[in-house]
Amino acid sequence: MNTHTFQSESAPVVKRQVKLKSILQSTGLDSLILNAGPSLTYLTGLNFHLSERPVLVIFTPDTTPMIVLPELEQEKLKDLPYEMQAFKYGEDPSGWGAVFNWAIQVGKLDRKRNGIEPRQLRVLEYSFLTEFATKAKFVPAGDVVSKLRMYKDESEIIAMRKAVKIAEQGLNATLPHIKIGLTEKELATELTLQLFRAGSDPEMPFSPIVSAGLNSANPHAWPSERKLTSGDLLVIDWGASHGGYFSDITRTFAIGEVEPEFIQIGIIVLDANIAGRETAKPGIPMEAVDKAARAVIETAGYGKYFTHRTGHGLGMESHEEPYIRAGNTSLLEAGMAFTIEPGIYLPGRNGVRIEDDVIITSTGAECLTSLPREVVQLV
Amino acid sequence: MNTHTFQSESAPVVKRQVKLKSILQSTGLDSLILNAGPSLTYLTGLNFHLSERPVLVIFTPDTTPMIVLPELEQEKLKDLPYEMQAFKYGEDPSGWGAVFNWAIQVGKLDRKRNGIEPRQLRVLEYSFLTEFATKAKFVPAGDVVSKLRMYKDESEIIAMRKAVKIAEQGLNATLPHIKIGLTEKELATELTLQLFRAGSDPEMPFSPIVSAGLNSANPHAWPSERKLTSGDLLVIDWGASHGGYFSDITRTFAIGEVEPEFIQIGIIVLDANIAGRETAKPGIPMEAVDKAARAVIETAGYGKYFTHRTGHGLGMESHEEPYIRAGNTSLLEAGMAFTIEPGIYLPGRNGVRIEDDVIITSTGAECLTSLPREVVQLV
Repeated sequence: MNTHTFQSESAPVVKRQVKLKSILQSTGLDSLILNAGPSLTYLTGLNFHLSERPVLVIFTPDTTPMIVLPELEQEKLKDLPYEMQAFKYGEDPSGWGAVFNWAIQVGKLDRKRNGIEPRQLRVLEYSFLTEFATKAKFVPAGDVVSKLRMYKDESEIIAMRKAVKIAEQGLNATLPHIKIGLTEKELATELTLQLFRAGSDPEMPFSPIVSAGLNSANPHAWPSERKLTSGDLLVIDWGASHGGYFSDITRTFAIGEVEPEFIQIGIIVLDANIAGRETAKPGIPMEAVDKAARAVIETAGYGKYFTHRTGHGLGMESHEEPYIRAGNTSLLEAGMAFTIEPGIYLPGRNGVRIEDDVIITSTGAECLTSLPREVVQLV
Repeated sequence: MNTHTFQSESAPVVKRQVKLKSILQSTGLDSLILNAGPSLTYLTGLNFHLSERPVLVIFTPDTTPMIVLPELEQEKLKDLPYEMQAFKYGEDPSGWGAVFNWAIQVGKLDRKRNGIEPRQLRVLEYSFLTEFATKAKFVPAGDVVSKLRMYKDESEIIAMRKAVKIAEQGLNATLPHIKIGLTEKELATELTLQLFRAGSDPEMPFSPIVSAGLNSANPHAWPSERKLTSGDLLVIDWGASHGGYFSDITRTFAIGEVEPEFIQIGIIVLDANIAGRETAKPGIPMEAVDKAARAVIETAGYGKYFTHRTGHGLGMESHEEPYIRAGNTSLLEAGMAFTIEPGIYLPGRNGVRIEDDVIITSTGAECLTSLPREVVQLV
């Protein structure tokens, strides 16, 4: 990372650390402890792979941030725009415990109430904490970081717009390659290639999901060796990444002539998608977006075939807060970014999903995605 | 996944489950509990993303395997070539605990000694286990699965050979694009694109590491906006994936005329790489491979600049057992696959790393990688 880029990115990280301290104070947490992952990157500006070498960062309301890391990663700490106490360990795992213990004692974590991220923290790191802070409490605090990460600032929104643009270019470049006989895997590989050609960063949000015919009725299918066949619905669910931020889009196509009912469910899902997008604005409960989309599908008689929530937050992760589902009465606020992705899946037959990415603005919602949404016949 | 592919893959999964049962019995473990990840895939043939929706598989020596999973993933269980008890939960997280509890009671995990993978299991899943099996012991059992996964069978070796071939084709197609002024990031993106063009599966082992000049002295650098400059050493560390198996290779190049000492350390590292590869064979302690490579670098007076272990296991993960490092006295055995990757990193200057992938055979070692290893001047 060169100095120029680094300094232009440093201000947000420091601002986030200041906000974190005040959230810790207001929630009565004595620390927040993060392992390698997006929250650590968000709050430190540092990138670590999740590997067999554990990395922990410890934030408290009144001390300099601390990091436990392998010696061979210490170069990453050079030129940080804030103070950081580093606890470095060597290649022999038998020496790691002492280094973790040292950090835990300096951070005075024992007998305290420490926040962790259950979705990210592994037993590998957690067991060092429980071994050396035996009287500490470790409480789920994923929402502490979510509260920060959920509100995208201008630089993040710019990155997400770009991630959407790259994804849309990648799909447009892929469509001409689609033909009967192509396998789902071949199509997924071509799309991946076109996403990189369109400028996606190497770390993709997820591998493209390409599912056709029978497989399109499975909302979480994996690309298979099945060949595209006339009469198939073809669901493509893909994203790109830019500057650490992701897009996540789904479009559905018809391959040759499909059953009239498949065209019909395409229209219903599109209406549900529109209803969801039109409902999304600040001050509205999150579940209202789900309800608006679901009502369209229920009214059409397909309620039991819309088997998942309407959407999920999007940003540095392809699934993050906020979740757009029944029962979530939290209110939408400006800066929140999420997907709206209703679907109808007819078991043993075919399925449709149409997914867009939106960001709540001060008055409504900006839809980042602009590709046509209709289920059109491709070949 | 079509039926043909599935059935051809089913036999290994069932064999692995049988082996696991006997290992559980011999180690006195009452169960092995896995979340989404490579070990789960290895032992079940099922693929799940690590997401906010926890998935757990429970193996015991004498019951049918059990799986806790989201309802919307249940399609994946169709046509499994073995019996599986499924415990399905819906979209509302408040109902998940009861489903996990049900599985834990059916599996009779409480008061038992249950194996977990600390490197993979998250507090998200672990907290369900400790909440509903309050008197159970959860013990690190990563080595139970490693013991299985460490010995590659013929189908796995074939997949790894192919993953190496794809990676080498991808690099060969990338080399003509390398020129002064290209950024590390641009080069990493071009290489990624060429890897997909060469046939890599979408799930890459890791994003290519491209580090030049000063950055090449950091063994775990991240591609930056730094432009290739005459006088740079250029380290490229990359891999491809095929059928769930990875390759992981490093080559170092000179950009324009480089300092004579950089050429010299290139020769030393190559000699160390050769020494490591020549030492690798069945019956030899793992640390002997590290020692052989390290001795070459130490003799040349650069010992303190070889700051990491000599290698790591490779297969379904880019880092797995066995680890080729000082102090590891376990013996190499046929079927073990790992990297040999000595390096010299001159702080504040430049660095060299040369990495190959080998598999121990009954008489020696097969080197999967075949690209030239010399540090040659590219432009």
